[in-house]
Amino acid sequence: MTTTKIGIIGLGLMGGSLSIALQQTSKDFYFIGLDHNEKHCTQALALGLVDEVVLNLDEIQHCDIIFLTIPVDGIIAMSKELNALHEKCTVIDMGSTKEKISQSIPSDIRANFVTAHPMTGTEKFGPAAAVPDLYKDKVVVLCDMEKSGVYQQNVVKDLFSSIGMTLVFMDAKEHDRHAAFISHMPHALSYSLANAVMKQEAAESIIALAGGGFKDMGRIAKSSPNMWEDIFRQNKTNVLEAISVFQSELKKCKKMVENEEWNNLNNWMEEANKLHDILD
Amino acid sequence: MTTTKIGIIGLGLMGGSLSIALQQTSKDFYFIGLDHNEKHCTQALALGLVDEVVLNLDEIQHCDIIFLTIPVDGIIAMSKELNALHEKCTVIDMGSTKEKISQSIPSDIRANFVTAHPMTGTEKFGPAAAVPDLYKDKVVVLCDMEKSGVYQQNVVKDLFSSIGMTLVFMDAKEHDRHAAFISHMPHALSYSLANAVMKQEAAESIIALAGGGFKDMGRIAKSSPNMWEDIFRQNKTNVLEAISVFQSELKKCKKMVENEEWNNLNNWMEEANKLHDILD
Repeated sequence: MTTTKIGIIGLGLMGGSLSIALQQTSKDFYFIGLDHNEKHCTQALALGLVDEVVLNLDEIQHCDIIFLTIPVDGIIAMSKELNALHEKCTVIDMGSTKEKISQSIPSDIRANFVTAHPMTGTEKFGPAAAVPDLYKDKVVVLCDMEKSGVYQQNVVKDLFSSIGMTLVFMDAKEHDRHAAFISHMPHALSYSLANAVMKQEAAESIIALAGGGFKDMGRIAKSSPNMWEDIFRQNKTNVLEAISVFQSELKKCKKMVENEEWNNLNNWMEEANKLHDILD
Repeated sequence: MTTTKIGIIGLGLMGGSLSIALQQTSKDFYFIGLDHNEKHCTQALALGLVDEVVLNLDEIQHCDIIFLTIPVDGIIAMSKELNALHEKCTVIDMGSTKEKISQSIPSDIRANFVTAHPMTGTEKFGPAAAVPDLYKDKVVVLCDMEKSGVYQQNVVKDLFSSIGMTLVFMDAKEHDRHAAFISHMPHALSYSLANAVMKQEAAESIIALAGGGFKDMGRIAKSSPNMWEDIFRQNKTNVLEAISVFQSELKKCKKMVENEEWNNLNNWMEEANKLHDILD
């Protein structure tokens, strides 16, 4: 078997974990990394996440497969600079929003592109945060696949399946609405919760009492502001809608407590319990 | 050493896990259980959580230590029925709200009582959910301790320390406000999130995309409606205040997205990141 050259643009949690996962499936990959953060490059090399680091796009465009594991605004900017791709090159972007990306890819390389969103991550970032099982048994949403070349579609399906992911196909517009509810709005809640508690007079005494419930609810408030600024910008309309829907549920809850409608509150909580019949 | 008789009223997650933890510290405990749910009694016996199950309060009042691990409304009702306690009997209630309980305990047995809130739990309930490490390395808040007898204070401090808990002392009023922010309001958020997502047209497709972030945020929406109805009732004022504070943070977040104030949003998220300097 010949070596497959894999370019990873963005040597953070997602790109690094991807390299570890792929290395576990085959020894025939050669990883070339690119990152504007010099420290991340050094770390990624030291951790064995890449075989080589390059300094500009020209040196990575000849790869067989190129992953864009950078924030969503960066993906759009980068897609406009990729212009020397060979016919069988597959570019996979892993941004958390998909519609604007899918629309922004220049038409001459649209067939090379596959827009994917792996529904996984942790609140940590940087190459040192990379872990082997980040993708295993997780869902990856593949968007607007009819716009990708048939060759590229197959490359991507094989690749994500090989690291244990479940493939879900969706159009980018639908994806962005779903992602707003299942991921983006919950991040807004976690950030709001963290700020609400920290603004209290006795914040440190309050936080000292945190049990598992609060820690879970506050965990994703540790996520990267730069990454999430991009996501909120690119998925603005859906995020605002999802926040509004959440707000009316919370308002309803508050009203039931205010008016002491305990039976209604109990039924409403029982409804919420049902989430876990679907989730588990 | 003589045997210490421990009564557990409420054979669920909290009471059951307590028995396991105490059994690991000494073989000189004898556990007597009481629960209106017959199935829980049978399970608790089968799981070795109690040595004996009794059917009424008379048969448990002679214990050296009595734990009330039942919902908060039940604790208040039960405290009025405990009337034949010997001088050295220690009654420990483990309810999630403390002010109303602390005020409701009949004065003739107030010295016997210690009102405690272990900041731990899982979304599961019933004796089968009991686990050995539920209390280990967790905080227990001991409220209004000056109202308990000195003997009882020492019993409780030794007991919770022996199972690896960190003791925090607080007056009940302060506890209830803190608990509203760190535990009760976050439960309202989780229930609201679950209902917001489940009401969407494509709910099942949305939930199929759930990653770790959403699972964390939705986990406590699995909690018992009966238990949480009680907590929201007993801590109504504080819960409403905490929800209001959260609502203004979320409103602020929404406005920044709406008005595309990306720098402000980024700074606000950076503020939220700081929670983890305190929490971790």
